[in-house]
Amino acid sequence: MDEIAPLAMRILEPLRTLLGERLSLNAGVRDQHGRGESWHPTAAPDAVVYPLTTDEVAAIVKLCAAHKVPIVPFGAGTSLEGQVNAIHGGICIDLSRMTKIVAVNAADLDCTVEAGVMRAQLNTHLRDQGLFFTVDPGAECTIGGMVATRASGTNAVRYGTMREVVLGLTVVLPDGCVIHTGGRARKSAAGYDLTRLMVGSEGTLGVVTEVTLRLAAIPEASAAATVGFKSIDDAVNAVIVVIQSGIPVARIELMDEVSVDAVNRYSKLSLPLRPSLFLEFHGTQAGVAEYAAAVGQIASEHGGDSFQWADQAEDRTKLWEARHKAYYAGLALRPGSKGLVTDVCVPISRLAECIAATKVDLAKASMPAPLLGHVGDGNFHVCFIIDPTKPNELHEAEHLHDRMVERAQAMGGTCTGEHGIGLGKITHLQREAGAGVALMKRIKQAIDPQGIMNPGKMF
Amino acid sequence: MDEIAPLAMRILEPLRTLLGERLSLNAGVRDQHGRGESWHPTAAPDAVVYPLTTDEVAAIVKLCAAHKVPIVPFGAGTSLEGQVNAIHGGICIDLSRMTKIVAVNAADLDCTVEAGVMRAQLNTHLRDQGLFFTVDPGAECTIGGMVATRASGTNAVRYGTMREVVLGLTVVLPDGCVIHTGGRARKSAAGYDLTRLMVGSEGTLGVVTEVTLRLAAIPEASAAATVGFKSIDDAVNAVIVVIQSGIPVARIELMDEVSVDAVNRYSKLSLPLRPSLFLEFHGTQAGVAEYAAAVGQIASEHGGDSFQWADQAEDRTKLWEARHKAYYAGLALRPGSKGLVTDVCVPISRLAECIAATKVDLAKASMPAPLLGHVGDGNFHVCFIIDPTKPNELHEAEHLHDRMVERAQAMGGTCTGEHGIGLGKITHLQREAGAGVALMKRIKQAIDPQGIMNPGKMF
Repeated sequence: MDEIAPLAMRILEPLRTLLGERLSLNAGVRDQHGRGESWHPTAAPDAVVYPLTTDEVAAIVKLCAAHKVPIVPFGAGTSLEGQVNAIHGGICIDLSRMTKIVAVNAADLDCTVEAGVMRAQLNTHLRDQGLFFTVDPGAECTIGGMVATRASGTNAVRYGTMREVVLGLTVVLPDGCVIHTGGRARKSAAGYDLTRLMVGSEGTLGVVTEVTLRLAAIPEASAAATVGFKSIDDAVNAVIVVIQSGIPVARIELMDEVSVDAVNRYSKLSLPLRPSLFLEFHGTQAGVAEYAAAVGQIASEHGGDSFQWADQAEDRTKLWEARHKAYYAGLALRPGSKGLVTDVCVPISRLAECIAATKVDLAKASMPAPLLGHVGDGNFHVCFIIDPTKPNELHEAEHLHDRMVERAQAMGGTCTGEHGIGLGKITHLQREAGAGVALMKRIKQAIDPQGIMNPGKMF
Repeated sequence: MDEIAPLAMRILEPLRTLLGERLSLNAGVRDQHGRGESWHPTAAPDAVVYPLTTDEVAAIVKLCAAHKVPIVPFGAGTSLEGQVNAIHGGICIDLSRMTKIVAVNAADLDCTVEAGVMRAQLNTHLRDQGLFFTVDPGAECTIGGMVATRASGTNAVRYGTMREVVLGLTVVLPDGCVIHTGGRARKSAAGYDLTRLMVGSEGTLGVVTEVTLRLAAIPEASAAATVGFKSIDDAVNAVIVVIQSGIPVARIELMDEVSVDAVNRYSKLSLPLRPSLFLEFHGTQAGVAEYAAAVGQIASEHGGDSFQWADQAEDRTKLWEARHKAYYAGLALRPGSKGLVTDVCVPISRLAECIAATKVDLAKASMPAPLLGHVGDGNFHVCFIIDPTKPNELHEAEHLHDRMVERAQAMGGTCTGEHGIGLGKITHLQREAGAGVALMKRIKQAIDPQGIMNPGKMF
């Protein structure tokens, strides 16, 4: 225990009294909690705790607050910008044992869950009631983690992001006080929007312990297809026309030929090696047919192939699981590698230009760099697959990343559509929000005057 | 000028130098700026200024900040909870001359406008480009005012509220610093959601001077109809089934028989005197027909009459203008009256029960009290039409209002769906948000440490 920071040491006894075996000082456990899924170097917390209730979280936070010990909330550890890395040590609050589905109100299309509920667990639970939780990032993550990073994913083009679907939260503030924000009404004008302030705050303002979510009805009909194009420019231009036509696609995902190759290998698909769109349509039988015909027409006008339909439910599942695992497919191109993942998002009218300029840069990159994304939202990722032992690879990827961010910001876009700031985009946020960052820091200071909540992140 | 508060006096000269004739001390002008459209007693500001640019607003705010003079931002003066009443005097910043439409990006379905642009002005400007601004409250208001109160209205059931459609803001903070929040990307995970924090902050955190809005394409086809029911319970239950069926109605508005009567008189309609729904459908020709048939079937199953279609464009306009002016129609039931307007919003499954209990209360009310609302969102209003010279009428209306709010909050709902807190719902917010109010106050204190921005509102 000689590695434990003196401050954290002081609260180990009371934490042990509170939690018993649900406090871990094991080096392996701490290491595993000191990193997400990207290149940021592991920074282990001094201890990991596994609360079971909001009251336990509040008690832990009060102890930490009394001794100014840093707190890092932890869900499934799938963040990409170092959000869970305990760079100032302290206590990692692992919420993965808070997995109760508190209530499902099918008549109101909403539910309340504990923060540790996994996205997949929730959807399995909901299926029999004809409902689903719409937000679908490419990771096996917790709902609390998705709140923290303002996650979105493949369905956001149709159903919105966490910003839109979170109706309310239970949050333990940095002084241990518990608040309930929002409610079950579809809209409210009652005071400051604390819910939206917490969504995307990356654990820097409090610990989210319960989440009330808006759900959607499983559509009467759905259909999925892939379609290849001669060039990525053609594919992107087809997407732009689809979005501008207002066709309500449920998913419209781009993969460049490098991504298609990676996914073919990793998920045993045999897609033609060309820039491709993955599509899904939701609606009535007639609606789905109408949307698919309209998109097919647009694709064809941009030189697209015929749609390859995923007719059977299992084909559809296989297709979207492959898309879901695309990041891991990229990493598998180079054993032992780590990813540095970009996340720019631009107005749809600028998307073709933005991706074309990016591809010019990528042609010169020395490492594999698959490009893919939620192009219906104007959001795409380049995954630089780097060797973490080679500093010049990190340097090169960061340089290319900077160029992408500057380009997107100059187009009225953002450095991050869904991954957040964490450790990796602090300078990008400064450039993007300008004087707004000073305001964010004042809010942080007001809510967390001791600076114990996930210190060193975002600013 | 002997009525001008000493603090405000100190800055009149520099304001005059800055603004010339665009500073008014006229008693009539000040009175007119000291009230919204409801019962709250007029509280005139010490002076009214009419800036033309964000820079001028910043200069005005800096002067006020230097001398701790209260600031009240003002749009069109249509708020219902005393938000613009200058209860601590100070300077009213009237933004109604900032009416530039800065940019319309048709390809991205967004636009940027100055805060004083009127909703109707914007829609007139957009029409030729096949676009419209979707948020439609029942007043002739400015976009800035709609940001301030987190407004919604008849279309919100399909297109969302100001919370959903505001993409970014230019805000002059209480120290005169100018920030730009959000951007033109459809989604972002870049730092705290300052945009959503400002939306609904009722002028207590800064002065909004520019707004970037998400727009929608004017649908290929639309159709509007009214339908009467034997009882309000039948009408509400039909709405609940429509919403739970996921039929994408563009508008689904309830009026009780008192509202129908008021609207018939005021807007020269001849609707049958029974609880009615006003409906609109947007989509393709086929889609509109399909939605209308489905809703017609549900209405008929709840004892509804046949749809009365507003076939011609002018009939449709007349219908929605009548709905739009329903508040004024209510006031016209009793010359010289003022309105005390309730605004509860509940989960849709509780709506019938909530409205039925409200109607029992209203049967005992001594004043006219039309009930109407955006029932697709679970939101409805009772307009108590009171004689402002009779304190017992105000007392009676407030008592009935309290009962409605308590009932809604007990159902997981909110005291306000779209009108905000202002002066009228401070105690209701406390009951609803609990410890969250203390957090809101800390945020207010951090952003406006001198407490000069619209003091006395919300808390």
